[in-house]
Amino acid sequence: MQRTAPSNHLFVGKKPVMSYAMSALIQLTQAGEVVVKARGLAISRAVDVAEIVTKRLGGGQFKVKNIGITTEVVGEGPETRNISSIEIVVGK
Amino acid sequence: MQRTAPSNHLFVGKKPVMSYAMSALIQLTQAGEVVVKARGLAISRAVDVAEIVTKRLGGGQFKVKNIGITTEVVGEGPETRNISSIEIVVGK
Repeated sequence: MQRTAPSNHLFVGKKPVMSYAMSALIQLTQAGEVVVKARGLAISRAVDVAEIVTKRLGGGQFKVKNIGITTEVVGEGPETRNISSIEIVVGK
Repeated sequence: MQRTAPSNHLFVGKKPVMSYAMSALIQLTQAGEVVVKARGLAISRAVDVAEIVTKRLGGGQFKVKNIGITTEVVGEGPETRNISSIEIVVGK
């Protein structure tokens, strides 16, 4: 997962879920699609963001179009470890 | 999400992730498919289980076939709240 991602990618971290939901909604309104991404424990929050945007805030306009999961290797040398990540594509 | 689910459904909760990964692997070996389910914060762990089974333990035999997310209503009366859930279908 690149941090230099396209502008329609939204990285979910430790901020309140509604903060990300609002960002996602703005992105959807402007561009018609947003890719909600998260790693590790933030994965649950990314799912919350997608659900809030599609079921509550979007007025029925948006839906989950694709969900992918993968494993990323983080850290260097002997400290590398695997971390799960998710990508949820939300669009019209 | 019914707790009286078909026997190939695996509910991920608070136990160590490898405990669920082993259960999933046994189910896959016996039946060829397992549906890994979780709600709320356990969603991250369900993704870990699917990734461990497909990438590390399964010897390349199994893959993620479908991922769905939804919102469940839990609690009763004035105490109802929404909780996100995930279903990950792993098979051959």
